[in-house]
Amino acid sequence: MPTTDIDTAMLTLGENARRASRAMMRASGAAKNQALHAMADALGDSRAELKAANAQDVDAARAAGLEPALLDRLTLSDKSLDLMISGLRQIAALPDPVGTITASTLRPNGMRVAQMRVPLGVIGIIYESRPNVTIDAAALCLKSGNAAILRGGSEAVHSNIALGDVVQAGLRAAALPAEAVQVVNTTDRAAVGKLITMTEHIDVIVPRGGKGLIARLANEARVPLIKHLDGNCHVYIDAAADPEKALAIALNAKTYRYGICGAMETLLVDASVAVSILPRIAAAFAAHGVELRGCPRTRDIVPAAKPATDEDWATEYLAPILAVRIVDSLDEAIEHIARWGSGHTDAIVTEDLSAAQRFQREVDSSSVYVNLPTCFADGFEYGLGAEIGISTNRLHARGPVGLEGLTTLKWVLSGQGQTRG
Amino acid sequence: MPTTDIDTAMLTLGENARRASRAMMRASGAAKNQALHAMADALGDSRAELKAANAQDVDAARAAGLEPALLDRLTLSDKSLDLMISGLRQIAALPDPVGTITASTLRPNGMRVAQMRVPLGVIGIIYESRPNVTIDAAALCLKSGNAAILRGGSEAVHSNIALGDVVQAGLRAAALPAEAVQVVNTTDRAAVGKLITMTEHIDVIVPRGGKGLIARLANEARVPLIKHLDGNCHVYIDAAADPEKALAIALNAKTYRYGICGAMETLLVDASVAVSILPRIAAAFAAHGVELRGCPRTRDIVPAAKPATDEDWATEYLAPILAVRIVDSLDEAIEHIARWGSGHTDAIVTEDLSAAQRFQREVDSSSVYVNLPTCFADGFEYGLGAEIGISTNRLHARGPVGLEGLTTLKWVLSGQGQTRG
Repeated sequence: MPTTDIDTAMLTLGENARRASRAMMRASGAAKNQALHAMADALGDSRAELKAANAQDVDAARAAGLEPALLDRLTLSDKSLDLMISGLRQIAALPDPVGTITASTLRPNGMRVAQMRVPLGVIGIIYESRPNVTIDAAALCLKSGNAAILRGGSEAVHSNIALGDVVQAGLRAAALPAEAVQVVNTTDRAAVGKLITMTEHIDVIVPRGGKGLIARLANEARVPLIKHLDGNCHVYIDAAADPEKALAIALNAKTYRYGICGAMETLLVDASVAVSILPRIAAAFAAHGVELRGCPRTRDIVPAAKPATDEDWATEYLAPILAVRIVDSLDEAIEHIARWGSGHTDAIVTEDLSAAQRFQREVDSSSVYVNLPTCFADGFEYGLGAEIGISTNRLHARGPVGLEGLTTLKWVLSGQGQTRG
Repeated sequence: MPTTDIDTAMLTLGENARRASRAMMRASGAAKNQALHAMADALGDSRAELKAANAQDVDAARAAGLEPALLDRLTLSDKSLDLMISGLRQIAALPDPVGTITASTLRPNGMRVAQMRVPLGVIGIIYESRPNVTIDAAALCLKSGNAAILRGGSEAVHSNIALGDVVQAGLRAAALPAEAVQVVNTTDRAAVGKLITMTEHIDVIVPRGGKGLIARLANEARVPLIKHLDGNCHVYIDAAADPEKALAIALNAKTYRYGICGAMETLLVDASVAVSILPRIAAAFAAHGVELRGCPRTRDIVPAAKPATDEDWATEYLAPILAVRIVDSLDEAIEHIARWGSGHTDAIVTEDLSAAQRFQREVDSSSVYVNLPTCFADGFEYGLGAEIGISTNRLHARGPVGLEGLTTLKWVLSGQGQTRG
């Protein structure tokens, strides 16, 4: 399709989404939940059609030589469909954030001032190969009263279109506008370019994918992004750390899963406890096959560690590799994190209250932990009930973003005819 | 100066600001208040120097033929200096938003999850001729723990540099970094271009000025803006309006001050009460010299009104001109506001609870009022104690933005060595 035609098609999607979002804003919680359950039912009833659509994608991907791990992520199985179905019902069961009103104040003139939680409007989701994101993202946007435009990876386009049909059937069953969730049905890159610059119709973009995708979008977008680029997370073992907690936290922070953004990438150890604590930790990591890369003082204590360079402090490995640095104080740890961190999630291990307080106050990351491993960075673990992504933005939502992060507050004032001046 | 030199100079300002912001984040409320009072003292002690610097600007502006109203805004008088001094002391007296922790939840595994209010980081302020903004903006950024880079109008550059020196003296007196507030000392436009695209050093830009300035910045900025373009505000007189309140609210909404963004620009009147209410309102506006522009049905009732076109529904007059339209229902009023409004501030006059509830729920503006004139759109009236501006953004701060709008929330979690999985 010529780019101008794609622009026109995307503009139409945008206008439809904007119109639908006005209906979604005022939709009742009951109607939204009805739609979510109807989608779950429709998913269960459409397994054959969904698998047939998915087979087109999987066959094409296999022919193109996609890696087995990626093929696996692309495949819709009964198990992955069951997970989508239960996910929809779980989101239906969450409290509706829309319409909540904050505690109001009564001004001296008798007028009441409060804030009401309302949907953001139209959300664009740009994601890579997993087709389950189509259902998850649609459900979160719907529950929070937003309209959504979904643009998945080109290798999953048939699956995503088929899943989009199921979502729209669910919306219709609840008498909500089908255009509240639209799947982009072209794989042309120009569609993404239009989506991320259509500020009049799209209020926010949530990208889900690798750093390369997100950096490119961040560079070209005019619409604000809820995003993070890196999860270069730190655990700092303070002078007053409990050695058992330090071992358990460091190990869990790295090995719970190597590929998640909350995985620890650098371990900082206070010099006063390094000799007593580091050898045990190094042995535990060795047993897990984690490669250590250390500063010179680390290597004095752990000779098996490879030498670390500045690049190691900057790197999000997402792999069984860990950088280790000995620091002389809490200040030096905070300074290292400020210099090299990505503002994602950082933790201190300490029994010293004032060290804990200072770390939590002074480390400027979206999540700051005391005596917990960084791998807890997850909306479900925080009790949000859902997660659309993790943000290291400073404005709007920061850290794990649940339903509330897809809403905003407007001011609502009520009076009895008061006038000003 | 060549543009590359300006870029370099701005980058240095940005790096200085980022470094200073780290110290400001952890500054105590006492130190910040001490700095604010020291600035107030220094302003009082520096009247002669400030007026001398200001005289350079005023003389140049007079020679360049600046209008008397603008010359007046540019001039630093004892009265305007006194207002700055009392403003500083008022901001010092406000509660410090930084460090506040939300109610925390205890997760099933015993870890505690809460959010802590923290500064945004580095704020760029771009404003037009009034030099008092230098002091107000510096004070609000400082109180909220942010570093600021201030870029005022070129016609006030000597005044702004002199005021910036006073601000930095106040910071030094409280042992805070002087670079926490920096005034851009070149009038070159390229400095603004760099400021609004330096995403690595500037977290948010707050523009204060006319629509032309803000639209231009919005178009070119890569840094997020807290802004509004238009205040096309509506009052809707519902079928169940109290006629006395309707008259008082409509009159006040328009005539309190014509030039503010909260001034009513279009009056919507329910058809069922138009004949009984409109003539009195029209007479009151005529007595105030306000020109009415009406839809055909309005002109049937108020023959003196000029005919309104679509352009009138779209226009923020900021002048004694008012568009008037008769609508057949609450739905039509809400639809008109969605179609033509700017999402700033809109009001309903009604004694009908369900109409009030629907209007407040369904009108998608940053402030939605019941039985109050739109001219209340102001942070001080809302009880925020201060205002850096009004935002019609959907993300982050919406409506009047006070100290809280210059902060963000980070997650703080505390445990006892819990691990995941």
